[in-house]
Amino acid sequence: MSHKTKVAVIGLGSMGFGMANCCLAAGLETFGYDVNKDAEERFRALGGASAPQSEVLPTLDAALIVVLNAAQTEAVLFGENGIVPHMAKGAVVISSATVSPDFARDMESRCAAFGVHYLDAPISGGSLKASSGDLTIMASGSKEAFAKAAPVLDAISAKIFDLGESAGPGSAMKATNQLLAGVHIVSMAEALTFGMTQGISPETFLEVISQSAGTSWMLENRAPHIVDGDYTPRSTVNIWPKDLGIVLDIAKDAKFSAPITAAAMQQYLAAAGMGLGLEDDAAVAKVYARNAGLTLPESDKE
Amino acid sequence: MSHKTKVAVIGLGSMGFGMANCCLAAGLETFGYDVNKDAEERFRALGGASAPQSEVLPTLDAALIVVLNAAQTEAVLFGENGIVPHMAKGAVVISSATVSPDFARDMESRCAAFGVHYLDAPISGGSLKASSGDLTIMASGSKEAFAKAAPVLDAISAKIFDLGESAGPGSAMKATNQLLAGVHIVSMAEALTFGMTQGISPETFLEVISQSAGTSWMLENRAPHIVDGDYTPRSTVNIWPKDLGIVLDIAKDAKFSAPITAAAMQQYLAAAGMGLGLEDDAAVAKVYARNAGLTLPESDKE
Repeated sequence: MSHKTKVAVIGLGSMGFGMANCCLAAGLETFGYDVNKDAEERFRALGGASAPQSEVLPTLDAALIVVLNAAQTEAVLFGENGIVPHMAKGAVVISSATVSPDFARDMESRCAAFGVHYLDAPISGGSLKASSGDLTIMASGSKEAFAKAAPVLDAISAKIFDLGESAGPGSAMKATNQLLAGVHIVSMAEALTFGMTQGISPETFLEVISQSAGTSWMLENRAPHIVDGDYTPRSTVNIWPKDLGIVLDIAKDAKFSAPITAAAMQQYLAAAGMGLGLEDDAAVAKVYARNAGLTLPESDKE
Repeated sequence: MSHKTKVAVIGLGSMGFGMANCCLAAGLETFGYDVNKDAEERFRALGGASAPQSEVLPTLDAALIVVLNAAQTEAVLFGENGIVPHMAKGAVVISSATVSPDFARDMESRCAAFGVHYLDAPISGGSLKASSGDLTIMASGSKEAFAKAAPVLDAISAKIFDLGESAGPGSAMKATNQLLAGVHIVSMAEALTFGMTQGISPETFLEVISQSAGTSWMLENRAPHIVDGDYTPRSTVNIWPKDLGIVLDIAKDAKFSAPITAAAMQQYLAAAGMGLGLEDDAAVAKVYARNAGLTLPESDKE
């Protein structure tokens, strides 16, 4: 009788819920846990397996951790009700939060003390791709960690980069990607509002620049939010002080001068200081608009 | 007998020479002028028409100005041997240098005093696309200016944006594009070298990030130069203090705070200060490498 992979997804937010569903759709026996019991209930209603965590943990092949940051990751793995001490030897922890490479190495080593594999596996792609199983995973870890995680990775991702045989490079690549993604959003906002001071409408900016050498993945993804005046959060302003904070912390440790990232960070902090932390990250344009006395497009919906 | 469009291309550098050839290839009667007489000779050898400028000017339909900046543009149009006073009423000046919108408006008005149309027509795409007639043109000007310029524009471009009925918006859009292009090159260099401090090779950086949300048009175009250690200038470091200088001057006039652009400018100035002004603009990565004690890839060619 072939073994059915058993996975627990811990963290059923906008990313984790979609990823848990993808595991279900791939035929994995999938448990979903969250501090929000409503989310757990919704996941069970969709076919999620049901059992107390204490009974499930020793039987798992994999635990997929989809929480916000390093502190939450550490709490889930080794906190008061930490899962790792209860997992079977040879099982794997797949850790997807954006964390520092040093933190990832520390978690790998502490998991190893319990005979549990650790895959440093940050994700990229946003909640839509999480729902459709089309994430990009920037992963590193032992051959055993990759092998044990394979059914879960296959269920949730369209592209897996194998970046090395231990934890660290996965998180390093994610931090590098976030540096650029965070900078490109602010740069788009700076250029769009600069154009407005010269009489270029946000619509014309988007039409022309998206077809020119000044374009970026983030510009094409986020500038439409400003054109539409729609700041419904797909990814919030608050993500960036966290993620660029990780980048700048790593950079400081490496004595690496990162002036563009540092300047971008200030604009996100100004946006958060304006009370926009929970809006879509394209709202960083409001910092520029306020400073320059510009009026951004408003949504038709209101 | 149908009239054969007569155009003079003034400025036969890496961009202008290719554009002049495209005019020839499109069947226009094309004259090429440059302070470098060798370039003129090479162009005539390829089929360029030959006649003293003083005889040609009154007969032209269009003059396409492909020089470096506003000062050179003004010298060509209205300097000691300025061409505009000698052009026929109803002819058009097509101005392609990156200049400020105010400068473009001034040139339009001074051309109008001689009955000459002015098309504010900055170009984007680089010397390869100039050679193949595939430039993008960000243009604005009167209907008459567009109509008169049409045979030339069709010969040199794959895409023409019509941004408004007077000079200014074309240059404004070009400045906006340069803001992003300049920032994205520096951001790529910052991220690539940041990754190196974390053990990510430039090759792996390029492979992963070009397929991720952190990518940009400039990253995909310029990061390969760093991976290959090839700083043969396609577009030089020196272009950026000029073009970002225009952006920051316009921004200052508009009381527009542009902290990302300002930070990017400093890195290009540092590169120029290191003596890299005539290298490919990807050489801005050498500023980061020097600061952080990193060794960038070297070319295999040596």
